[in-house]
Amino acid sequence: MFAHHQKSQLTDWLPMLTWLKNYTRQDFNSDLLAGIITAILLVPQGIAYAILAGLPVQLGLYASIIPTICYALLGSSRTLSVGPVAVAAIMIASALKTPELIALGNPAESAVILSAETGLIMLVMALLRMGGLVNFISHPVLTGFTSGAAILIIVSQLPQFLGLTAPACSLTFDCYADYFSHANLITLALGLGAFSTLFFFQKLLPYLLNLMAFKPNMINAISKCGPLMTVILATIAVSQFNLTAQHVAVVGQIPAGFPDINIHFGNFEKWRLLLTSSAFIALIAYVESVAIAKVVANLRSEKIAPNQELIALGLANIASSFSGGMPVAGGFSRTMVNFSAGARTQMAMLIAGSLLAVAVMFVSQWFTNIPKASLAAIIVIAIIPLVKLKNIIQTWHYDRGDGIAEVITLLGVVSLGIEKGITLGIVLTIASHLRKTSQPHIAVVGRIANTEHFRNIKRHQVQTWQHILLLRIDESITFANVNYIEEFLTKELIRQPNTSHIVLILTSVNDIDSTALDALEMLNASLKTANITLNLSEVKGPVLDKLEKTDFLKQLSPGKVFFRTQDAVNTLS
Amino acid sequence: MFAHHQKSQLTDWLPMLTWLKNYTRQDFNSDLLAGIITAILLVPQGIAYAILAGLPVQLGLYASIIPTICYALLGSSRTLSVGPVAVAAIMIASALKTPELIALGNPAESAVILSAETGLIMLVMALLRMGGLVNFISHPVLTGFTSGAAILIIVSQLPQFLGLTAPACSLTFDCYADYFSHANLITLALGLGAFSTLFFFQKLLPYLLNLMAFKPNMINAISKCGPLMTVILATIAVSQFNLTAQHVAVVGQIPAGFPDINIHFGNFEKWRLLLTSSAFIALIAYVESVAIAKVVANLRSEKIAPNQELIALGLANIASSFSGGMPVAGGFSRTMVNFSAGARTQMAMLIAGSLLAVAVMFVSQWFTNIPKASLAAIIVIAIIPLVKLKNIIQTWHYDRGDGIAEVITLLGVVSLGIEKGITLGIVLTIASHLRKTSQPHIAVVGRIANTEHFRNIKRHQVQTWQHILLLRIDESITFANVNYIEEFLTKELIRQPNTSHIVLILTSVNDIDSTALDALEMLNASLKTANITLNLSEVKGPVLDKLEKTDFLKQLSPGKVFFRTQDAVNTLS
Repeated sequence: MFAHHQKSQLTDWLPMLTWLKNYTRQDFNSDLLAGIITAILLVPQGIAYAILAGLPVQLGLYASIIPTICYALLGSSRTLSVGPVAVAAIMIASALKTPELIALGNPAESAVILSAETGLIMLVMALLRMGGLVNFISHPVLTGFTSGAAILIIVSQLPQFLGLTAPACSLTFDCYADYFSHANLITLALGLGAFSTLFFFQKLLPYLLNLMAFKPNMINAISKCGPLMTVILATIAVSQFNLTAQHVAVVGQIPAGFPDINIHFGNFEKWRLLLTSSAFIALIAYVESVAIAKVVANLRSEKIAPNQELIALGLANIASSFSGGMPVAGGFSRTMVNFSAGARTQMAMLIAGSLLAVAVMFVSQWFTNIPKASLAAIIVIAIIPLVKLKNIIQTWHYDRGDGIAEVITLLGVVSLGIEKGITLGIVLTIASHLRKTSQPHIAVVGRIANTEHFRNIKRHQVQTWQHILLLRIDESITFANVNYIEEFLTKELIRQPNTSHIVLILTSVNDIDSTALDALEMLNASLKTANITLNLSEVKGPVLDKLEKTDFLKQLSPGKVFFRTQDAVNTLS
Repeated sequence: MFAHHQKSQLTDWLPMLTWLKNYTRQDFNSDLLAGIITAILLVPQGIAYAILAGLPVQLGLYASIIPTICYALLGSSRTLSVGPVAVAAIMIASALKTPELIALGNPAESAVILSAETGLIMLVMALLRMGGLVNFISHPVLTGFTSGAAILIIVSQLPQFLGLTAPACSLTFDCYADYFSHANLITLALGLGAFSTLFFFQKLLPYLLNLMAFKPNMINAISKCGPLMTVILATIAVSQFNLTAQHVAVVGQIPAGFPDINIHFGNFEKWRLLLTSSAFIALIAYVESVAIAKVVANLRSEKIAPNQELIALGLANIASSFSGGMPVAGGFSRTMVNFSAGARTQMAMLIAGSLLAVAVMFVSQWFTNIPKASLAAIIVIAIIPLVKLKNIIQTWHYDRGDGIAEVITLLGVVSLGIEKGITLGIVLTIASHLRKTSQPHIAVVGRIANTEHFRNIKRHQVQTWQHILLLRIDESITFANVNYIEEFLTKELIRQPNTSHIVLILTSVNDIDSTALDALEMLNASLKTANITLNLSEVKGPVLDKLEKTDFLKQLSPGKVFFRTQDAVNTLS
């Protein structure tokens, strides 16, 4: 028994043990192919997302190695690919933009501290078992947020295609005319070329290969090489025609081998300044990762363990920090590539991470001449599917309230920024949820003739009594709904002015909290001045135990607590 | 009909019309006495609360005149007395303490702008019909908050008794020894004298008068003069013995006649800096006022109109601003004095406000020599009943969760400050409420033999089918609970591994939001891979209409939507 317990604990902590014990040669072959294909995507993505976050490119590459491997060992998803992701990258950019942080210098250090803090917050959430938190970010809020962030990302990439920095002027025609007149046309050409290459690999090539009767698996694998080919072609163009002399922006020298960034983890002022942003990144990274993991797990009837995900992602972020990387999460495109390339287990990610480590150690000089415009094209193509306009329209048609929440969150993110936008969305959704749950179902009931069954007078032919008002309250009575119940009762009294006894039937009431108790006491007092008694029936044991600790039952007198509603009717009529 | 409508609208906007039309000579006599007694309390309270807020005393006096009259004309409570109150005063003090505001100078101007902004926020809340907001501040949070604020206030008054400013040192013995060595013993004597006088009027004198067979009304009226007599005696002592020469702090010269403060309402930077504080003061002022108004209304079976209260309090605050006063609210002690002095209508407050106006215009020089120590004694005596330790203990015994919320709010207010403390309390309460409402009641049901009634298998002797799992979900399915429902269903499937059909009985489901729909689609997809069909029965019209706009019902196939649960059983078994 103990041994069994021990073992089940171990697989809980190391989910890889569940697949490793039955691991076959076939599994490895599948995972090897998926690992290689995903690794090919990881290079341009890692570099691109570091640039998007405004960081030296090696922070993106480092974040694609140890964290990916760390999650592979600990995560409960078999195919989620963890590393730098676009939405987190733009949140990092926004976190590092505050003047106080800029004044403290060394943005790479700030980013690495951000990784550590994000990871620690996730571990604290895991400790408090807050995995269920994910339930309170509704899909409309999440979709609105992701779409808004994607729009922000796309807009942020536009200057890259023109070889410009972000415009310094406001929205006047003269200023913009001047701004665009400085565009670098060679950079623009490279960007358009990159788009064409990506389009060719994503749409045209699969179509052609299909005509040529290639196997679907093969087609899939070849089409996934689009980003890498784009980068290779663009880099060759830069080197061949010496385009850096033409002011085409490139990635530049990457320090070879492993991290040598100068990090002082003891810079507590930075920890303090980054706290709010880390909390938001932790929340979003967790929610997005679990959402993606669930989609792929569902396709194969696997299960995701929410709390284990918090631990795995938290440790992956801490690992990223110690290996000099930026914050990480489960990425949508990388996971989809991994999954559709046939990955069966996290072995694929162990392989991808190891391959990337080799690349960073030995061939990082190959990355020097990659033009930034081609990376911007890769980001834009990867991010466009995240702007889910179709989903927003569907939601709007299905549920107007959800549609409004989605649009407001999107607009909030675009206009107020990432953190305020999502806070707005969450607050709105919870407020509307509270408003709805504060109106519980209450039925005025009567007795079905010749039985002891009491039913809603609106739905059944029932017997009623002029002096007795029978109300069945179908939810626990709490601060959130006791006012509504009071208003409902007052309205019923106006409709039935001859009432001299009210019976609250508490079959569905599992709790009466202290706010509700206060309100019931006040209600009882004012009913007494109108010579109406307040009675209870069918009170559940735990509720009665609580009420007996107070004066309330004495205050009710001459009102009583009846065991059955039938008893109340017998006594009062 | 139209005329009636017109009239009912007028009394809605001017509740005073309802009592004015039947107003009698007896009513006036009662109101006159109550008005005079309350006015006597208003002078020391107005001065004391202005000092508590760190403001020139006239801001408290001005706030006791026009705002009191304004509320008397518009408020829906017949006995609520509106003016400066202790809890708002300490919130004002904390609002004005931020370095940015201090840098802008002229704290009186800031306070007057704060009144206007608080009033405007209340009017906006009224416009959005947010009167119901009060329901989401539970009693434990409110009591915890009030008790915490009261403790802060009492502590803030201690240096006044010693004639000291707040200590500049931290908690070391040497520092405190030095601090207290500078105490002004004459001030301390005056403070103790004030306490004794207040105690005499509050406890001893009523007892003696009772022995001497005075009428209760008379005793009550006399005992209410305690604060005024305290102030008169202390002032005489100061003047007689020239105690100002002994460094006893006094109120000082008050500008005679009406406001001449130099206010620039166009100082938008102040509006911006005060926004958060105004929102908190508006919320607390409104919630506390309604709570007090409800208590007294209940004693006489009168009704409070929440939205009208927002309008009346909002306009009272704007009136306070334009007459150069600090933010106002309904006060606990002043209302209780007014009520127990026999006030029948707001005529009492019209009289009290007018009397105070006369006093401020013609005899304000009498206030010059009032020692601050006597005012501190009045504040402490007025505030002690707000520290509701007994209530906290009762709540703790009645409902542990509520008790914890109450204690955390109290500790939060005392340690983190007013605004953070109450935010903490509200967030905790709403989070715990969300957690509870995210676990709806779900029943596994079976059929009562020889009927078409389906009931909980735990409570009734029912017929079940091995391959069919019938689940009745007793709440609308939303983002907040759909995960719980999914987990419940998964557990039931593990207990009944032979299930091949699941029927969700939706009798109590009034809505399925878009998050829930997504989750149900994913659930259905993964059930299909396990060869289990998902079926619905007793779907309400509006819910079915919504579902028909989507693909979900097609996706269910071979699962179906059944009109009655009986139909489902007939088809599937």
